[in-house]
Amino acid sequence: MVQGPTPRPLPKVLLFGILPVALWFVIRPLIDPIPPVPAIYTSIGVSLLAFLITIYLIPALGPTFVKANLKGRDLLKIYADPIPESQGLVVASVYILSLILFIPFAFTRLFTELANAKPSTEGISVLEFPHHQLSVYLSSIISLLIATFLGFLDDVFDIRWRHKLPIPIIASIPLLMVYFAERGNTTIVVPLPFRGLLGQLVDLGPLYYLYMIMLSTFSTNSINILAGINGSEASQALVIALSVIVNDLLYLPWAVGFRIPLHLLGSRADVEVGGLWGAGMAKGSQVLVERHLFSLYFMLPLVAVLTAFLYHNWYPARVFPGDTLCYLAGMAFAVVGIQAHFSKTLLLFFMPQIFNFILSVPQLFGLVPCPRHRVPRFDPDTNLLYPSKAQFLQHPSKLSSLVLHILSGLGLVELTTHSRDGSILETTNLTIFNFLLVRFGPMNEKRLNQLLITTQVAGSIVAFVVRYGLAGLVYDGDRR
Amino acid sequence: MVQGPTPRPLPKVLLFGILPVALWFVIRPLIDPIPPVPAIYTSIGVSLLAFLITIYLIPALGPTFVKANLKGRDLLKIYADPIPESQGLVVASVYILSLILFIPFAFTRLFTELANAKPSTEGISVLEFPHHQLSVYLSSIISLLIATFLGFLDDVFDIRWRHKLPIPIIASIPLLMVYFAERGNTTIVVPLPFRGLLGQLVDLGPLYYLYMIMLSTFSTNSINILAGINGSEASQALVIALSVIVNDLLYLPWAVGFRIPLHLLGSRADVEVGGLWGAGMAKGSQVLVERHLFSLYFMLPLVAVLTAFLYHNWYPARVFPGDTLCYLAGMAFAVVGIQAHFSKTLLLFFMPQIFNFILSVPQLFGLVPCPRHRVPRFDPDTNLLYPSKAQFLQHPSKLSSLVLHILSGLGLVELTTHSRDGSILETTNLTIFNFLLVRFGPMNEKRLNQLLITTQVAGSIVAFVVRYGLAGLVYDGDRR
Repeated sequence: MVQGPTPRPLPKVLLFGILPVALWFVIRPLIDPIPPVPAIYTSIGVSLLAFLITIYLIPALGPTFVKANLKGRDLLKIYADPIPESQGLVVASVYILSLILFIPFAFTRLFTELANAKPSTEGISVLEFPHHQLSVYLSSIISLLIATFLGFLDDVFDIRWRHKLPIPIIASIPLLMVYFAERGNTTIVVPLPFRGLLGQLVDLGPLYYLYMIMLSTFSTNSINILAGINGSEASQALVIALSVIVNDLLYLPWAVGFRIPLHLLGSRADVEVGGLWGAGMAKGSQVLVERHLFSLYFMLPLVAVLTAFLYHNWYPARVFPGDTLCYLAGMAFAVVGIQAHFSKTLLLFFMPQIFNFILSVPQLFGLVPCPRHRVPRFDPDTNLLYPSKAQFLQHPSKLSSLVLHILSGLGLVELTTHSRDGSILETTNLTIFNFLLVRFGPMNEKRLNQLLITTQVAGSIVAFVVRYGLAGLVYDGDRR
Repeated sequence: MVQGPTPRPLPKVLLFGILPVALWFVIRPLIDPIPPVPAIYTSIGVSLLAFLITIYLIPALGPTFVKANLKGRDLLKIYADPIPESQGLVVASVYILSLILFIPFAFTRLFTELANAKPSTEGISVLEFPHHQLSVYLSSIISLLIATFLGFLDDVFDIRWRHKLPIPIIASIPLLMVYFAERGNTTIVVPLPFRGLLGQLVDLGPLYYLYMIMLSTFSTNSINILAGINGSEASQALVIALSVIVNDLLYLPWAVGFRIPLHLLGSRADVEVGGLWGAGMAKGSQVLVERHLFSLYFMLPLVAVLTAFLYHNWYPARVFPGDTLCYLAGMAFAVVGIQAHFSKTLLLFFMPQIFNFILSVPQLFGLVPCPRHRVPRFDPDTNLLYPSKAQFLQHPSKLSSLVLHILSGLGLVELTTHSRDGSILETTNLTIFNFLLVRFGPMNEKRLNQLLITTQVAGSIVAFVVRYGLAGLVYDGDRR
């Protein structure tokens, strides 16, 4: 029998290289002159520490998880060794604890008082969040905790698919309650073509709450169903988190300003980035700067813990994420999208997930048979992955056949038909993985995940073009 | 083999009797004239609903827990059927969800706006908490969630005793962070005899944070070690919660005022309860009324879910609480003691736990051998419990012998000595249960738990006498 992989080694340089950098970032805002946004240094420092803790804690806790029966076999490998499951729990614990320990840095007059300094008078500076933001921050933490907890319960109790769907709804209740208590904004900006009809702003009222619930349900479940190969869950979440960070950075007060020449792409105006006074896209709005800082404070440590996890989860995986990780990441995205008010931009970063979800619909809603696992099929001899298939035990309905023939025409699935009457016998499973394998041919697991990452990155580039290029056609500068 | 008990039946009258009452309480504050504290009606209504949900959910989820290997044998019974463990998880989930759903009722202008009414102009009314209290409320929920989560992890991973101790410390971090961010009060009122030396108020500064950590560590662990017989965990928590509620009620604006004739007990003044203007012990202070309302909003649903749990956990137990329940309850008490600033009064309600802890010290710190289970010994023939014993495998040290002889002299333990040299061979285990069995003789499990409840109630009565009678000797009316 083939032996499974041993824990991935941790080079000493990691600890000795990153630790001093992390500590410098924590201390920097206390040194005069204090920067316009001191807490962002602390956030980077705390994130680096969270990275270190996670990357060391995961292999250390692995055996404990296996002993507690939180383990799984890697279905796409030749070895059968138990791999620790639900390690998203470690990721989530470190992540949430970082967020909690960060509270005094963002929400008190810590820096100004300790450094005994005056805020820089030039441009926008955020030395301290307004008070009511603390409640918003705390409600976000509660939602993340509940999402993690329910994700872990899912791992322990193995909750059925249909019972899982409401989990993000429960987890988003704290968000909604505090949003309501804080009299959060429920208006949306109407796209230009509809302004004659609806005016510039529309108050969605209770519908806005429904929208928030749907957003968290979507972001959570869409990551959870794009899963199954080594590294896929963390990779996609990592690319999305990095995309959100890049987007946030466009709104911050940088020391130097520059332009992204979007007129080359046909936009009416270039995107100005940075500039102390203008803070780039924030165009002088303190509120927009604060919103995107809020988002950054959630995304920076998320990137840190996901990277640390991915180090151990990369092909061949030493640990598995469990549903816990997907729920945590999905909820974190929903939180920033809702609280920092850029949910439409956020959804643009979810294009591969949206594609995967729409592609899955015929199987999720019973038009096409849905086996328990839809992961690609592993061929031990070649070490390659092939598209996995769903078999029709009964003759497919007319609607099913029609849908599958359309999907096949689009090159999204491969059908096996009866030699005589041409009826569909088998179809490749309706996931983005199987689509990629149909499109690009069999490949090994690592390459398939790299292809997924490429797709996700390409999606984010398109998202930025749409958001800052094409959106000018349907929205003016008014953002709330 | 003897068959274990089946789930305790749920009389229909429960549902049909309590549901309408619960709904009336939820609706009442919306009807003119709105009462001085409308949210307290909602809190009672929500608590009643939480009671119903818990009492129905626990037996429904039992098999799921057993299937997920969260089960245990009842060591003090003749049957060996698996009993669902960690049902504190259900209790905690319903409890925390109730607290979250309650947010809009306490922290928004919901009632005044919906009923379109003016607040009653007479006396103290709390129609809405001040804004910063929402952060405090949310941080308390985070602490409760973390305590529950870590308690559940303890149940799943079976964390070792020494590793458990820091759990309440981690859970109290959110409390401390927000206390710091909200610039919470770190001064204490100095007892009269020391005022010449220290002044009226002393600012403890960082020591106050240490005190908060110690309080949550103590309240959590002291309940966790007074455990092991059917109903004991929930019973003690229930009596403490009810004591806190009685104490809170002394500070509320009641429609009628009356006096408790404490001069009979030697106090300098009677305790005045109620009265719209005075709000009893609050003596006209809106802040004191708000603090005790805050406490009530945490204690009412706690009593509800604990009662529902106790229904199924009562001898012979159909379900077990797990560490989850102890952590939840302990943290809930720490939260109200800290946030509502009555930690000294709270500790008075913990007298049996303090007694049990002090009695346990020689075993916890290795002076006396400590077996894994210290629960009383069950005799299947008589169905009675006897004191369990710890054996000295080695000759006891002089210190151990001295301590045990003192404890024996006080009637707290029973020793077995060597017939010749008089050296100690065995001692009854150092817990309040074994002490009660030594003192009152063998009894069955149900009666032992009833005796524990009696002790706890007696302790609370003494606590009230000390707090409102004797405390006048060392404190004047100044309370912060």
